[in-house]
Amino acid sequence: MEQKKIKVAMIGMGTVGSGVYEVIERLQKDKLAHKVGAAVEVAKILVRSPEKYQSQVAAHTQLTTDWQDIVSDESIDIVVEVMGGIEPAQTYLTEALRAGKSIVSANKDLIAVHGSELEALAKEMKKDFRYEASCLGAVPIVQPLKENMAANNFSELVGIMNGTTNFILTNMSEKGLGFDEALAEATRLGYAEADPTADIEGLDAGRKVAILANLAFHTKAVFDDVHVEGITKISALDMKYADSINCVVKLLGIATKEEDGLVLGVYPAILAKSHPLASVGGSFNAVFVKGDAIDEAMFYGRGAGKLPTASAVVGDVIDVCRDIMAGCEGRIGDYTYEAIPIKPLEKMESRFYVRLLIADHPGVLEEVGGCFGRHGVSIAQALQKGSVHAGQAEFVIITHEVMEEKFNKAIEELAKAKSVGRVENVIRIYGGLPQ
Amino acid sequence: MEQKKIKVAMIGMGTVGSGVYEVIERLQKDKLAHKVGAAVEVAKILVRSPEKYQSQVAAHTQLTTDWQDIVSDESIDIVVEVMGGIEPAQTYLTEALRAGKSIVSANKDLIAVHGSELEALAKEMKKDFRYEASCLGAVPIVQPLKENMAANNFSELVGIMNGTTNFILTNMSEKGLGFDEALAEATRLGYAEADPTADIEGLDAGRKVAILANLAFHTKAVFDDVHVEGITKISALDMKYADSINCVVKLLGIATKEEDGLVLGVYPAILAKSHPLASVGGSFNAVFVKGDAIDEAMFYGRGAGKLPTASAVVGDVIDVCRDIMAGCEGRIGDYTYEAIPIKPLEKMESRFYVRLLIADHPGVLEEVGGCFGRHGVSIAQALQKGSVHAGQAEFVIITHEVMEEKFNKAIEELAKAKSVGRVENVIRIYGGLPQ
Repeated sequence: MEQKKIKVAMIGMGTVGSGVYEVIERLQKDKLAHKVGAAVEVAKILVRSPEKYQSQVAAHTQLTTDWQDIVSDESIDIVVEVMGGIEPAQTYLTEALRAGKSIVSANKDLIAVHGSELEALAKEMKKDFRYEASCLGAVPIVQPLKENMAANNFSELVGIMNGTTNFILTNMSEKGLGFDEALAEATRLGYAEADPTADIEGLDAGRKVAILANLAFHTKAVFDDVHVEGITKISALDMKYADSINCVVKLLGIATKEEDGLVLGVYPAILAKSHPLASVGGSFNAVFVKGDAIDEAMFYGRGAGKLPTASAVVGDVIDVCRDIMAGCEGRIGDYTYEAIPIKPLEKMESRFYVRLLIADHPGVLEEVGGCFGRHGVSIAQALQKGSVHAGQAEFVIITHEVMEEKFNKAIEELAKAKSVGRVENVIRIYGGLPQ
Repeated sequence: MEQKKIKVAMIGMGTVGSGVYEVIERLQKDKLAHKVGAAVEVAKILVRSPEKYQSQVAAHTQLTTDWQDIVSDESIDIVVEVMGGIEPAQTYLTEALRAGKSIVSANKDLIAVHGSELEALAKEMKKDFRYEASCLGAVPIVQPLKENMAANNFSELVGIMNGTTNFILTNMSEKGLGFDEALAEATRLGYAEADPTADIEGLDAGRKVAILANLAFHTKAVFDDVHVEGITKISALDMKYADSINCVVKLLGIATKEEDGLVLGVYPAILAKSHPLASVGGSFNAVFVKGDAIDEAMFYGRGAGKLPTASAVVGDVIDVCRDIMAGCEGRIGDYTYEAIPIKPLEKMESRFYVRLLIADHPGVLEEVGGCFGRHGVSIAQALQKGSVHAGQAEFVIITHEVMEEKFNKAIEELAKAKSVGRVENVIRIYGGLPQ
């Protein structure tokens, strides 16, 4: 009996695309047939300049510049999109589903905005839509939320969702570098792109928060629902103060379900060293979840890179192949079946770290304390360093839990207080402080 | 249209069983129908004493003492085995598959010995056989190996696979307790059973190594193939020496694929604090994998406990329900399709930690060095403490990599050397030492 052959088409042949191609071709030779019960081949790849890739692909792979070559080809079972960006990726994936093909995508920009439309269309067409690689690269989290951990009601999902910023913050913390120096080193070593905005301003992590929140809480949040702040305001000094209270500073992506809505945010946060996320260093990513049955779990790995991302994409392809062989594409339906209101971050309670420059004379503490007190902000800890320069001293305050809105009003008043030279930085504190 | 109802039968209603029942009943009320497109109910439970559980179950759940009540009932779609032990669990699960039911099991004792027979039978019957809870409780690892990470050729899988021993070792390390004290505390707090043998002697972790090795390397290893050592010989002193070189002592389960075979072991090992497994504390479990595409990934969570284990069992049940609804039970075939020879641990290269009591006089180092040298063991580091008692001193040696067989011969000779009072302890070192 001739073995069935499953045909895959790819859209894009950049870094991730060539990794996907390499992994599929490598597996094909030994294990893929065992794993899916069929031969699998990349039959077509949509690229702009076929001549550029001709030497990289095998004879059975046709390079094409024409999307119609793929979408109208009935022998293509699976379309793998690794081009990125919203358009034309959205059109291609929509057309592929409508043409009866299952789809696999690594495209967080697209899925963070139009993911639930694609989920709904896949359900309607009874096809698979898989996107493990769109969140934290090689770290398995999309399918574990849909499958292994499906028995849980989650209360929170929090993670280190961007490798570039984690590399920068780890270097600042370990080597005492300032932000600019650490960014320059990340660029030099290839961990930051020429234009690092999407990473250092938290946009990349924000997209992942939207996608993961939908999986954990079954809702239809989009990137715009996520409150996003980057790491550019973090200084070596903040790192030192954090260290002095047994904490680190990390850029966290956080989705919290409260009784009155979902709070979605990306921001730098102070975190106890004893938290499992605190020891995630360098360019690694991790995501930590809290559920009513599982208690706590964490998933750790490479959030980017050619082969790690390809690992996630090809894992999805293998699973779609199994569904094709078993005749059950679309077996996991739309996962975004609820509509949970978004609650603004300002309505959340947090602890805060505040670093001030204050006049170095008596009566200052009274004025500072008064500003906080009038807005119901109570102080848990105050760290005063020696005189910094000409009559001004550094003063760091850790607050108790307080609604962010109230805290912001205290900070506004503080900025105008006559004994306060400047509010140098404010950083949220995640979770409890070390004892 | 009436919604389809999927009927589950459970074997056993102990701690895990009652957790499974609780989680299914809790989910049923809101989310289960959304997730699987059907109603799901626990229709029957096999127990020894029905009267004991009557008050714990809903009216739709029938308690029975007769296995035939379940296996002959054609309306039962899924059998969930949470009784443990080899027999009668093996017979029940085999009969359930033959009767056309999919099975879910949390039974590591059984699966570490007869797992591949059940995999083969499930394949033959085209039914699902799921066992996420058998390895590391709530930590998702069985399905991620079969699905998310299926694109990888793995070289190693290493983990902290037993919560009781990790709790004991963490306490020894953090509080400076001896083994006996730490075990007593674990027993008092309910982290160790009245008879702790299976945990502290490494048997429990050894079963998980066999199961996970089969998933990572597609082979048919069984518990007897795993070299097993426990933690009873670890002392507070070893912990201190490990700490002095920036390491910790952990009970590791390790499956390594070498060119000439698979090495499977459970033993206490010295591990750099910078390794992600080093910060897995208390009763938590974690498993760390190395693959050719994913690079490194780690999965962390609760390895035991009523609700965490139930989380894994019910995650499997939900996925089987989806397969039933999509008509694709058995969609992931037998995963143990290769036969890789087992390579004895003695043929592996490791670094070693050796703690000796030696005579405190000149010429000793020459004799000790000679024993090692004659067997090709080269010394990387030597730590000598002051005189311990009456002419004897403590002497700790860290070796370079050497085949264990050769190292053992050196230790044999050392034990007889006239200036060596006693070989106090030998511990393998996992991975590289901190710089």
